[in-house]
Formats: sequence, structure tokens, C-alpha cells
Amino acid sequence: MPEPANTALLPAGLHDVLPPDAAHEAAAVERLMAEFAGHGYERVKPPLVEFEESLLAASGAAMTQQTFRLMDPLSQKTMAVRADITPQVARIATSRLTKAPRPLRLCYAGQVLRVKGTQLRHERQFAQAGVELIGALEPEADAEVVLLAARALEVVGVRRPTVDLCVPTMVPLICRALGISDEDTATLRAALDRKDIAAVTAVGGPAAPLLERLIAASGPAERAMRALEALELPDAAEKDRRRLRAVMALLRAAQPDLTVTIDLVEYRGFEYHSGLSFTLFARGVRGELGAGGRYRTGTGGEDAGEPATGFTLFMDTVLRAVPMTPPPRRLFLPHGTPTDVAARLRGEGWVTVAGLAHADDEAAEARRLRCGHRLAGGATHAVS
Amino acid sequence: MPEPANTALLPAGLHDVLPPDAAHEAAAVERLMAEFAGHGYERVKPPLVEFEESLLAASGAAMTQQTFRLMDPLSQKTMAVRADITPQVARIATSRLTKAPRPLRLCYAGQVLRVKGTQLRHERQFAQAGVELIGALEPEADAEVVLLAARALEVVGVRRPTVDLCVPTMVPLICRALGISDEDTATLRAALDRKDIAAVTAVGGPAAPLLERLIAASGPAERAMRALEALELPDAAEKDRRRLRAVMALLRAAQPDLTVTIDLVEYRGFEYHSGLSFTLFARGVRGELGAGGRYRTGTGGEDAGEPATGFTLFMDTVLRAVPMTPPPRRLFLPHGTPTDVAARLRGEGWVTVAGLAHADDEAAEARRLRCGHRLAGGATHAVS
Repeated sequence: MPEPANTALLPAGLHDVLPPDAAHEAAAVERLMAEFAGHGYERVKPPLVEFEESLLAASGAAMTQQTFRLMDPLSQKTMAVRADITPQVARIATSRLTKAPRPLRLCYAGQVLRVKGTQLRHERQFAQAGVELIGALEPEADAEVVLLAARALEVVGVRRPTVDLCVPTMVPLICRALGISDEDTATLRAALDRKDIAAVTAVGGPAAPLLERLIAASGPAERAMRALEALELPDAAEKDRRRLRAVMALLRAAQPDLTVTIDLVEYRGFEYHSGLSFTLFARGVRGELGAGGRYRTGTGGEDAGEPATGFTLFMDTVLRAVPMTPPPRRLFLPHGTPTDVAARLRGEGWVTVAGLAHADDEAAEARRLRCGHRLAGGATHAVS
Repeated sequence: MPEPANTALLPAGLHDVLPPDAAHEAAAVERLMAEFAGHGYERVKPPLVEFEESLLAASGAAMTQQTFRLMDPLSQKTMAVRADITPQVARIATSRLTKAPRPLRLCYAGQVLRVKGTQLRHERQFAQAGVELIGALEPEADAEVVLLAARALEVVGVRRPTVDLCVPTMVPLICRALGISDEDTATLRAALDRKDIAAVTAVGGPAAPLLERLIAASGPAERAMRALEALELPDAAEKDRRRLRAVMALLRAAQPDLTVTIDLVEYRGFEYHSGLSFTLFARGVRGELGAGGRYRTGTGGEDAGEPATGFTLFMDTVLRAVPMTPPPRRLFLPHGTPTDVAARLRGEGWVTVAGLAHADDEAAEARRLRCGHRLAGGATHAVS
């Protein structure tokens, strides 16, 4: 459809999604949700708005700066518009579904709203779709969500999605074991996110040689694992290596051709994660298609709440990696076409477009209404 | 799933939709959208939030009191969270799709948020799904949207939906023709909404006899039309009678068994409508399933913007009229079930629930995870 330049009507980062994109997005979301449901994940739908104190509790705190507030005239309390659905699903699991058997598999899809866009994502509203697997600590749980994310992306048409695994807990464990101060650890993490070897060398002290080797080891999964296995790690970091090894083995057994890379030093974006985490990419598409990983449903340390893992797909980016489906076959029905005839044609797969008044030139009218076919004399005819 | 009483976490009128209800709602929405699409209505997705001045312009003004406001830090302007999607679709039609051929058929589904619930609808957030048919003035357009609304409701499982037609313009035209003051007309309209014959008699003056007969005529469509045809109407109201007659003839030709009632005096809820309007009900279900009718896309009288008609379905009420679908067949897969076996079983229609660790008693584990079947020895077995 034509799009005049008159789009200044909407605030920056907010958009009207027009035909055929809106239908394309909805179909992709529902296809993803069907895949999640097939793996036993049951759909929940939290509200767009909650009390601020509940929405920004626990892992929700990461979104404090990105969250719009509203005053609730009924309760006189501050409400917040969700900027992320994951914390809401964790809340549901630990409140209303606290008695449901574990592991609890939940999935969701919905819109989120953010105060500001980022350089990589100008949109302030976009759709999220994802899963949470709650109450399971096994490597099998980590592998299940990674494989499901990759599989779901393939199902909606993403060609060869890439999984970037990381273990955001490993660097802090190494730093603590080697006596690095919290302040230096924070500096190192920022340097590691930038892969800034000079800064790591300068600040790393006794941890520098190991951290440099972790940077060098990052890359394609098999090579990264070989390099990681060759390293001498502090005992405290051993559990992270063991987990990565176990999950990689499960991923390879299940899907040998999945493209997996490993980043052993990445931290950015995983501040609230407590274990194996991952990011999803597609070749040739800018930005993350999704992200996920391990976290705890409560606040206050390693034993808070329940162990959980999951992922969220960002539909704005996912759709850039999904080929457009062919447009529906539109059939023009001349004025007065009986209802049962129209219903039969829809049953045959046609999209019917009814003429609301007599048209002298029905072929021209069909063309004007973007119909590739028209009904005449009881039969369908292509409109040249 | 069990639901503990811990629901005080959320503001009044906002809810977590849990399994299986969330999946049920999503499936119903997409089934409705597929029906709309089959009739040539193309999907649009306006944002949750717009500038207040654009969201509450034209027909959006009806929702001023029900709309939450937000300050946009980027533009320093007031934004508003939509309380209704219809005005957004009209805005899209008259801005970004102004050059698309008419009639323009658009459909939409999404969440709306309202400041307060009403007596009939406690929910402050609910899903709307609907269509707009823009740029068509023919009775065929009125009939198309009425029939589509009824058909779509039947498709999602509503048994024998009822259409209540009304013509909110007729009473004002009659009052003006008979010299009733604007003030008395407003009083009469309120009285007519209550079907308060005593008040109508008291205030109606020269219009009272006719208005009383319009009240009496309201009811099942065929009887109402016969009564209406027997009335002597001022010339100005003649076009409304002609329109009603034409639309009823089209409805009867298309679907003779559709239950239609006619209310000749109803006004409440149709303050922004400019012609034939309707409400949708289902036997035994409290509240409206949806509403729609004629309006103009612009403000300022009979010639403002374009002629349009459409309807919105309120999913909270619709779902009360839709029977629950049978739950999916959940199949427990013991720990270590190969990925390709699981994929094949999903292909056969099973929802697979993977065991993440060894279970001594797999039947008990399947039962615990609410699976009716389990895989053992390469075959599926019912779990007693």
C-alpha cells in the first residue's frame, strides 16, 4: 500500500505497522507460540501495566530507567508500563502458579513499551515472544531452551540462526578467586565487553593472563571449548566450565549442525543472569534476534527464589530475518454475488473482496482494488 | 492449573491470564482475524501510545475520560495510552493510507487500557478485535460489516449471536423536524435510552406520540420494521428509514436465520455515530460482545472526512460466549529421548514434555507433569 510521508503524527520510536507487515508479524508470533506450545510451554498473558513496586522488583529492576509510570486513580499508587515481559512471567510463576508442578514451562507474547530507543533499536514499542522454564537446574534445561530458540526461529523462516553462548558468572568468579577488588572487577568487565586487551592487561593484575586467554579462546564453539579445556581455572570457576561442557554436549547430540559460538567474557546485557546465557543472531541481520539464559526468580543471591532459564525474541529484529510470505490471492466479487458463493470461494482459499455497488468495468474495478482475479459467469478469471 | 489467592499484587481491573485461558484467547483472536482477512480486510497495528492530541481527536474524543496520559521525555509532549483502537485505524486510513483505493478494508487486534472499569466491564485492560470499512456509503457496506461480525462470532464458537440494530440519528432528526429544543432533545434521548415512557410523554411535546410509538415498535426485526413502515415520519427522518429497510433486506437475503432486533430509540454508546449502528450479544452471556456502526473519519459534521463503518469485538465478553477447546494431548518423554523422536511426535500432534533428569517411576512423573500419555519402548502409553 502507498505510504505518504505524513508520519510525523506519531512520537519518535512509535509506528503504525501497515499491510502486509502487521499480518506478517502476527503470523510469525503465532507460529513461534505454536512451536513453544508443542514443547509443553503453556501461554500466560500478564497485563500491560502493574504496580511499579511489583513490576520493577527482582529482575525487573534492570528496566527501571526504561519504564513509563502512570498514576492509578483507583489505588492512588504508581503503576508502570512493562518494558520487558520476562519479570512478569517470573512473578506469575512465583505467585499465582507457585503450586503448579516443576519444572514449570510458560510462554508469552506481547507488546512492551520503553522510554527511549537505543542505537541498535530505535523502536520504543515492539513485540516480545519467549519462554521461561522455571524450577529446573539441570544442564538439560539450558540445552532445551537454546535448542527451542533456534528451532522456533527456523520454523518462522530464519535461515541458520546463530547461538552465542556465554557464562557471565565466570569472570567474576575468577576475579574473586584471584583477589581482584570489586572495583577493578567492574573495570575489567567493561574492558572485556569491549574486548579491550590493553585495558585488561593494565587492570587485570594476577587475573590478566587468564582473562586474556579467555578473550582469545572466544569464538566458534568447538575451538573455544578446546581452548577452555586447556586452561587452568580457579576451583570456583570450575562449575561454570563443567556446565558449559555439559550443555555443549547436549546441543551437539541434539543438533550437530547448529552454529554455536562461545564468548567467555561477555557480561553486558546479562547483569541479572546467574549462569549460562545466550544471544541469538541471524547472518546478515543487524542486532540480536533474542537473548536468554539462567536467572533466579527472587532477589538477594544464589539461593533466592527458584532457578530458571528462558529466552525472549525481539520481533522487530526477528522479522528482519524472516522472508515475507506471498500475498493472499484476492478475488473480486461483483456486486450481488450470493453469500454462499462467496463463502465457498473463501473455503477454497480465496480472499474475497466484495463490490459494494455495480461496476461497468468489473476487470478495471478488480484491478483498482488490487485483486489478481475476479469472479464472472460463476468462474474465477485472472485480471491482466 | 491451581491459582492461589495471591492476586492482590495487581491493580484492580488488571489480570494475569493463566493457562489455558491465555492460549484460548489468542487462538480466538487469530481465528477472528483470519475470518476478517478472508473478507479482504488487511491487518494494521497502531502503537499502544500516541500523542494525546492525535489519539483523542475526532471519534477518539469519546474516550477522553478513560485515557491514561504519559509524558514523553523525547518530545516533551503528552502522550496517551489508547483506550480504543477504532480512532487509530481511522487515523491510519486518513493519513498514511489516504491514497489507498476505496473502499479501504482494514482490521486490527490489540490491547486497550482504560482508567476505570464500568459496572458491566470490571476489566481495565482487554483485547479488541475489529474491522473498519472506509470510504463506502452504500447500504451494502452496512450489511457487510454486520454479517461479518455475526459470521466471525460464529466461527469462533459463539452460538447464534444476536444483532441489535439501531439508528441513533433518527430521534434527533425527528425532534428537530418537530421543533423540539436541543435541551429537551437531550432530556428525551436519556429518557429513551431508559425506555422511560412517562418522561418521554412529559417532555416530548409534539414529538411524544411518535417517540412513544418508536419505543413500542422496537423489538424483533420483522415486527419492528412493520411498525416503522406504518409510522408517519417527518421527511428528514425518511432517509434513516430507507437505510434501515435496505440493510434489513440485504441481511435477510444473505442470512435469513440471523437473529436481528431493532431498537429505534437507543442512543447511549453511539454518540459519535452518524448512521446505522449495532450491538452484538449472545444468548446467556452478560454484556455486549461487540458494537459498531457508521461514523465519519473527520470532525465537524455530516461531510467531515470520509464515510466509514465497522465494529469492535470485546474479547473479554466474547470469550465468555466461546466454549473452551479441549486441552492439548501432553506426552511425557523420558530423559534422553532423542530430538528427532520428539520432533516426529510433535509432528503427529503431540505436545511433548521432556523429562530433564532420570525418573524412577516414569508413569508417576508423567502424571505429576499433567501428561495423559508417556513414551516408553518407542510407543505412547496412556497414563492411568
